[in-house]
Amino acid sequence: MLQSKLFTKTRKESPKDEVSKNADLLIRAGFIHKEMAGVYSYLPLGLRVLKNIEKIIREEMNQAGAQELQLTTLQDEANWQKTGRWSDEVVDIWFKTKLKNGSEVGLGTTHEEPLTVLMREYISSYKDLPLGVYQIQTKFRNEVRAKSGIMRGREFLMKDLYSFCKSEEEQQEYYDMMAEVYKKVFSRLGIGDRTYKTFASGGTFSKFSHEFQTITESGEDTVFVDEEKKIAVNKEVMTDEVLKDIGLDRENLIEKTAVEVGNIFTLGTKFSEPLGLTYKNQDGKENLVFMGSYGIGLGRAMGTIAEVLSDDNGLVWPIEVAPFQVHLITLGDHPDVLKQASELKDHLEEENISVLWDDRDLGPGVKFADSDLLGIPLRVVLSDKTMEAGNVEVKKRTEEKPIYLNEQQAFDGGIREHLFGK
Amino acid sequence: MLQSKLFTKTRKESPKDEVSKNADLLIRAGFIHKEMAGVYSYLPLGLRVLKNIEKIIREEMNQAGAQELQLTTLQDEANWQKTGRWSDEVVDIWFKTKLKNGSEVGLGTTHEEPLTVLMREYISSYKDLPLGVYQIQTKFRNEVRAKSGIMRGREFLMKDLYSFCKSEEEQQEYYDMMAEVYKKVFSRLGIGDRTYKTFASGGTFSKFSHEFQTITESGEDTVFVDEEKKIAVNKEVMTDEVLKDIGLDRENLIEKTAVEVGNIFTLGTKFSEPLGLTYKNQDGKENLVFMGSYGIGLGRAMGTIAEVLSDDNGLVWPIEVAPFQVHLITLGDHPDVLKQASELKDHLEEENISVLWDDRDLGPGVKFADSDLLGIPLRVVLSDKTMEAGNVEVKKRTEEKPIYLNEQQAFDGGIREHLFGK
Repeated sequence: MLQSKLFTKTRKESPKDEVSKNADLLIRAGFIHKEMAGVYSYLPLGLRVLKNIEKIIREEMNQAGAQELQLTTLQDEANWQKTGRWSDEVVDIWFKTKLKNGSEVGLGTTHEEPLTVLMREYISSYKDLPLGVYQIQTKFRNEVRAKSGIMRGREFLMKDLYSFCKSEEEQQEYYDMMAEVYKKVFSRLGIGDRTYKTFASGGTFSKFSHEFQTITESGEDTVFVDEEKKIAVNKEVMTDEVLKDIGLDRENLIEKTAVEVGNIFTLGTKFSEPLGLTYKNQDGKENLVFMGSYGIGLGRAMGTIAEVLSDDNGLVWPIEVAPFQVHLITLGDHPDVLKQASELKDHLEEENISVLWDDRDLGPGVKFADSDLLGIPLRVVLSDKTMEAGNVEVKKRTEEKPIYLNEQQAFDGGIREHLFGK
Repeated sequence: MLQSKLFTKTRKESPKDEVSKNADLLIRAGFIHKEMAGVYSYLPLGLRVLKNIEKIIREEMNQAGAQELQLTTLQDEANWQKTGRWSDEVVDIWFKTKLKNGSEVGLGTTHEEPLTVLMREYISSYKDLPLGVYQIQTKFRNEVRAKSGIMRGREFLMKDLYSFCKSEEEQQEYYDMMAEVYKKVFSRLGIGDRTYKTFASGGTFSKFSHEFQTITESGEDTVFVDEEKKIAVNKEVMTDEVLKDIGLDRENLIEKTAVEVGNIFTLGTKFSEPLGLTYKNQDGKENLVFMGSYGIGLGRAMGTIAEVLSDDNGLVWPIEVAPFQVHLITLGDHPDVLKQASELKDHLEEENISVLWDDRDLGPGVKFADSDLLGIPLRVVLSDKTMEAGNVEVKKRTEEKPIYLNEQQAFDGGIREHLFGK
């Protein structure tokens, strides 16, 4: 894409009324737009990032055999009355509104109830289980405070997966499998090395649930990390008894602040019982379906990536998440430079490398500063100077100094190699 | 995909309380699930259809140079007060809800207001125009009655594009260009031959707007069609004067009922004026931006396709919209048949042809009836019988009788050819 055609622009000043680092950076780079506290629109570059995150998650969920569907925002009171979760006194983050006939409906904060009800039509036999079903869908949560940018929104995109199993044992297997899938997701999102599977409080049906906590100074949670075992414990549940239970030694733990980017939870029969989701076993006997839930907030993941990987000059996107992979910058308007840029862009795009070409009539200072702010993984500069020298300037966003490839190397896999590593 | 793994199943009985043909068919085929009147979840097969429609629209909008973003559902009252569209007496389809601090927010029914406000940050010069911006996003409309299945939802996915131009003339050019893009979209959606660009009532800034009306008996609109010119007029605006104006002859017009699947509208300065969206022209003078809007309802398009193309036996999906392109049906469980099916599936998928393999242990009657109900474009049958004869049975959903390809033909482009035509 030509940057001159992109309607968004960067800005130098931080937005007013924005205390979070992620929203500050993303607004200055033109990735998002604040509609109100905790409610953000996604502009073209931001939407590209969000769609890349969505693609990674979808691929991994499909790979794990889960089936995608899409539930609705508008929620029927009846389903939630049965589980006791309709009352604002029990769930204090509901948005509610009314149909023309006066009946109240809610905006989905989560979807255990409608999905459990839906599944009554499709699950009847042990042969239908185990089953994993997920959606990537907008949730609404009426947060009192929403000061964390896209990391805690009143309206946000979430992947929520629900597992349906015959027994606690089968559920545990699914749970362990999905925990591994989550590790892969966070690794592809570029935050795997600082994201810990973390013991957190469980429910009626399990001692613990697990959060995936990404270490960051701005995190809302406190966790104790065992760096060697790549495991953490949420402060909320950390007692000597728990540590003994999970085989961790207090001496090896380091206190850190972190943000929860995902969580997995054993629901047991909490929803299948009140909503009547059963299956017939091999003897023809009715049993309750044993459930689990698995969430990842997409906006929160994007905000976390923005916060933890950025530096003083701006955003730093991991390669699979970046809005474009290569930021091609031309300096000056020499026809030969523009011709070379056009050819290089075509060449890279043919190799499925996405390119944003900064073709704007601006000086190198402004262009380089913008490039750092946007955070595209690889910067490639073409100018009179490189033309004369017969080379191409290439620099990763995370590198201090550029390297120079000769023109043939650049067209012959050199850029790809520098981008992806060998 | 293996049909035995798909969690949805077909059903024979029509759902109760469902008067629309599209919802009846789509529910029986397991494509959608009714949450409440006008509110439907999309199950895996239905979501695949919806995503295919989304892909077609996105490709065509991008091809036309429009930039994608994603605005929010939650709407700030302030923007709508300025245009006089906040009051329930003016806009009677609002859903409204409240933040914890008591302030009222709306659920977006359309997005002219927030986008115009957003664009004030990015449009300042004539150099920024013309510009087309679109989103594919969920709208909420508090309809009194919602009896048309997914063709008129209270919650539905819509593509809305907005154009920003320097002048009425530039807007007209954009409008005419987009009208052609719409024709291409509806053609790819498989309803191009029965969808008419239709003159409808305009506004302050144009004599007419245009609807894209698809002829169907269940349509809510009455249009008069000139089949030769491939143009129609909405009954609402049909007068002798209008006919003269647009060069149509009453004698050539046929009255039909139709459903509106898209519309394009000149907004002029209706929103840029109250919301203050201006640009500086070449002389440095401030001018109001001249706008247009362009909508396609994705659920409505899907419902329309379901209604107009289906037959007594079930759904009939056009090739680009279908959840899968080939429905591979194996009869019996002879290992050679299963081996051949597995190879054929791999072979087709390598050619980017999507395959649903009905591997269920059921008789041909049930399988064929299900296949007709699901409406996948090409049915391929493998059985002991075809194995013995060394051939493969192939039938389009729209054909009465199958043809037989020998095994080599089937693996050598014969299936692709029958699916796509030569």
